[in-house]
Amino acid sequence: MITGKNYIGNNLSSEGNITFKTFNPKTNTQNDFLFTEASDDEINQAVQLATEAFIQYKNTSGIKKSNFLNAIADEILNLDNDLLQIYKMESGLTIERAIGERERTIWQLRMFANLVKEGSWVDAVIDTSQPERKPISKPDIRKMLIPLGPIVVFGASNFPLAYSTAGGDTVSALASGCPVIVKSHPMHAGTGEMVASAIIKAAKKTEMPNGIFSNLNSSGIEVGVNLVKHPNIKAVGFTGSVIGGRALFDLANQRKEPIPVFAEMGSINPVILLPKVIRKSKNKIAKIYSESITLGSGQFCTNPGLILGIKSDDLTNFIQILANEIVKIEPSCMLHPNIIGNYEKNKAKIKSQKGVSVKAEYVNDVSKNFGQQVIMTVEGETFFKNTTLHQEVFGPFSLIVQCKNKEQLHEIVKNLEGQLTGSVWADNDEEIKYKSIIDTLQNRVGRIIFNGVSTGVEVCPSMQHGGPYPASTDSRFTAVGIHSIKRWVRPVSFQNWPQKLLPIELRNENILKINRLINNELTLNSI
Amino acid sequence: MITGKNYIGNNLSSEGNITFKTFNPKTNTQNDFLFTEASDDEINQAVQLATEAFIQYKNTSGIKKSNFLNAIADEILNLDNDLLQIYKMESGLTIERAIGERERTIWQLRMFANLVKEGSWVDAVIDTSQPERKPISKPDIRKMLIPLGPIVVFGASNFPLAYSTAGGDTVSALASGCPVIVKSHPMHAGTGEMVASAIIKAAKKTEMPNGIFSNLNSSGIEVGVNLVKHPNIKAVGFTGSVIGGRALFDLANQRKEPIPVFAEMGSINPVILLPKVIRKSKNKIAKIYSESITLGSGQFCTNPGLILGIKSDDLTNFIQILANEIVKIEPSCMLHPNIIGNYEKNKAKIKSQKGVSVKAEYVNDVSKNFGQQVIMTVEGETFFKNTTLHQEVFGPFSLIVQCKNKEQLHEIVKNLEGQLTGSVWADNDEEIKYKSIIDTLQNRVGRIIFNGVSTGVEVCPSMQHGGPYPASTDSRFTAVGIHSIKRWVRPVSFQNWPQKLLPIELRNENILKINRLINNELTLNSI
Repeated sequence: MITGKNYIGNNLSSEGNITFKTFNPKTNTQNDFLFTEASDDEINQAVQLATEAFIQYKNTSGIKKSNFLNAIADEILNLDNDLLQIYKMESGLTIERAIGERERTIWQLRMFANLVKEGSWVDAVIDTSQPERKPISKPDIRKMLIPLGPIVVFGASNFPLAYSTAGGDTVSALASGCPVIVKSHPMHAGTGEMVASAIIKAAKKTEMPNGIFSNLNSSGIEVGVNLVKHPNIKAVGFTGSVIGGRALFDLANQRKEPIPVFAEMGSINPVILLPKVIRKSKNKIAKIYSESITLGSGQFCTNPGLILGIKSDDLTNFIQILANEIVKIEPSCMLHPNIIGNYEKNKAKIKSQKGVSVKAEYVNDVSKNFGQQVIMTVEGETFFKNTTLHQEVFGPFSLIVQCKNKEQLHEIVKNLEGQLTGSVWADNDEEIKYKSIIDTLQNRVGRIIFNGVSTGVEVCPSMQHGGPYPASTDSRFTAVGIHSIKRWVRPVSFQNWPQKLLPIELRNENILKINRLINNELTLNSI
Repeated sequence: MITGKNYIGNNLSSEGNITFKTFNPKTNTQNDFLFTEASDDEINQAVQLATEAFIQYKNTSGIKKSNFLNAIADEILNLDNDLLQIYKMESGLTIERAIGERERTIWQLRMFANLVKEGSWVDAVIDTSQPERKPISKPDIRKMLIPLGPIVVFGASNFPLAYSTAGGDTVSALASGCPVIVKSHPMHAGTGEMVASAIIKAAKKTEMPNGIFSNLNSSGIEVGVNLVKHPNIKAVGFTGSVIGGRALFDLANQRKEPIPVFAEMGSINPVILLPKVIRKSKNKIAKIYSESITLGSGQFCTNPGLILGIKSDDLTNFIQILANEIVKIEPSCMLHPNIIGNYEKNKAKIKSQKGVSVKAEYVNDVSKNFGQQVIMTVEGETFFKNTTLHQEVFGPFSLIVQCKNKEQLHEIVKNLEGQLTGSVWADNDEEIKYKSIIDTLQNRVGRIIFNGVSTGVEVCPSMQHGGPYPASTDSRFTAVGIHSIKRWVRPVSFQNWPQKLLPIELRNENILKINRLINNELTLNSI
């Protein structure tokens, strides 16, 4: 079933010399399949095919794109248990998690299928002419969103399905009318190839142009770098580390024609616990966070890595309860020896900083590659001054900062780097007293949560997944939900354009019955 | 009336050591006023004030912002003839042009005042909770656009009013809730100071926080560079050359926290003349382009600098007619000796390229600083190979490319750099035969025009002013029209957020009666 080859458009190909295997962290052994990294020639072929496919695909109707996306969902489901097994073998995650993530992937595909079938997402705006206007007549102008061109998507290590081969970036780009070239994540190249085969099958079945999708294997950075530098590539989607995302961002901006990079990167997702709620609900909140911090071995971008409170006996008690709770939880397998290696390294780095104390650490023997959770504490002033403590530790880790007072808490929040999420816990109306701190927090995050945890990212129109740098490279766009399609498009105006040459979305007759802003009024009417 | 000082928030200040004067190109003499460049201290003060003002301003209601913007319009009108005179003295442009540009500026202010008063522009999206959902309950999530923070706007040389101190960038940023610091254009520092005084008056009158607006003088690049590098600045608006825009773009991307730069830069605005329309309407089209090329001495970003046709006797005749027409037009004064200096230099550069011939040039004596129009021609193949010929010549210039056939025309269009606009002229249904060329052109431009000229940029919702690089640094946004506000904002999600802490746009009761997407349905209803 798994060939180890690249999909260059519809063709399986393995011309390169570099080969690699994936790793099963649960058994701590290499998997059998041998993958061949894409060669420079194969990269160029994939981009060339995508460039040609774009000419046809950008003008493909919403209904046809919708059929294609639904067919991808069907074909992924057809992979059935084979997919779940390879997912498990390449990630150390459970079958339950595989099923859940597949469900999310399918849901995303169907959601975008519905979005493009309905059609209003193109934001059609029409201003009809006013020939009689003085001193000069007003022309007829019509505007809508059109796709940018071939897109490169980097598979994420922590979501082998939902943010990889047919994940949020790929699906939103395909929905917009852009061909996609996936640089498959080396940790789950087999999962990637299997999903790619589903996409290719769906593309053939629904008669999509060859080159609309390619899947390239890679073991290092070269394939990704060459893709991002290729002049025909028009945008990049990435989920991963700040170092990786920033490197791609810099590369893309140094091109003769710079292109947008949507990198969803690091975040420590600060949590503010206000005094009254801690007094009243310390047991409940401690239990919730012991679970949230260790969920999926802390390998979520929304993992709560920073808890901020104001020093008090209640906070001390809370920390102790959280410490007691968190060590009760059984550690689970992390994605890869490299991931756990980095986790241990970063944990040790924080531990070695002056003023940091470990409050709880799971120390019992665990299987190889299992992540042992830890919580540490530090005083507000120490945290404020030492930016090493502000860095993400990817894994089941959280740092609790004990601020000396409200003012110090505010100063710390003011100086936080950009974050994907921020959470606030408060008792009845307690939040009113902290309005300015909350307002400051809101200005540093993409999503702000009240009396709840940041883990669990709903796929819905109101979701903003992305925040001020370094949470993401462009806080104006989301990586999750229907509006993520906006990353791959740009508006074009048609002035005095003949009806029959106009895209159907902009013609007088509202053939698709979509929402359009006509002469400043949102309407379903024809002209 | 003109002090030569900087506005650091509400205060006039001139602590720096560098002074400069503006220039009257019509009289070819320096103007009297002496301007003091902003010092490093003044720059930091302006940014600090803007940072503090943002805390209050970002939560200011749409009605209050609307009052502020309308007050700016009123105060600009109150400047009356004084403003028109200084405009004329610093630009060489006519009083009629000054009045027209002031009208556009006022219109933009009123338009954004209406937009923020109405309020739907924040794109409110609400997904209510589903506590009963399995396996986990769905939280309540609500999303809207919030402002980024202090913005730097660079005044444009060619629009002392409409794209400078209170121009499109400033007004859209202020409307969004961002404080603005203008780096005034050195060529019209007096016009800038006068408009700044109107903004400050309006800010005081409507009780806006001090620091919401500053106006900094500069004679070189230092002030702009220091502003863009300041960590508290969150985005940049710029209109000018590719070299200038790219330099700011690079600077902004090299920051620890990169920020978006919206640079509207160079464009040669290609025009395709199809064979049948040339045969039939050569006189009319030649007349239209003789006027469009020389309009405002060619100092518009939408000036048609490239005309593409297929070789024929009709095209030869058209070129001759255009040549005859264009020399009949009286040259007019350009903005500044530097502008005309560059025009002459770039003209000479194109003229010196192999295969280029001058078809018409205004050679009669003209006053100092008047721009003498010229049209040149070149064969398709020569143009295709020599990218020097693809560069913008800012001024009353156009290059006509004679393609040997349809295929060569298509190849040329395919390889054009990104453009603000592209135009197509066709006779009855002739365009159908050239559909693929037109489709290619559409992919290279931000606005595409049928049987009309690109000069004249309507300020309306359907306008896209911005195109693929190097037309602008971010083709996904427009610099003109209501949607230009989208450059200065980002979405934020509020999860399970208490009603009284929510922005009023997101509360259950639709207090502002704005359009909101509630559970996937666009509605004016409350919840």
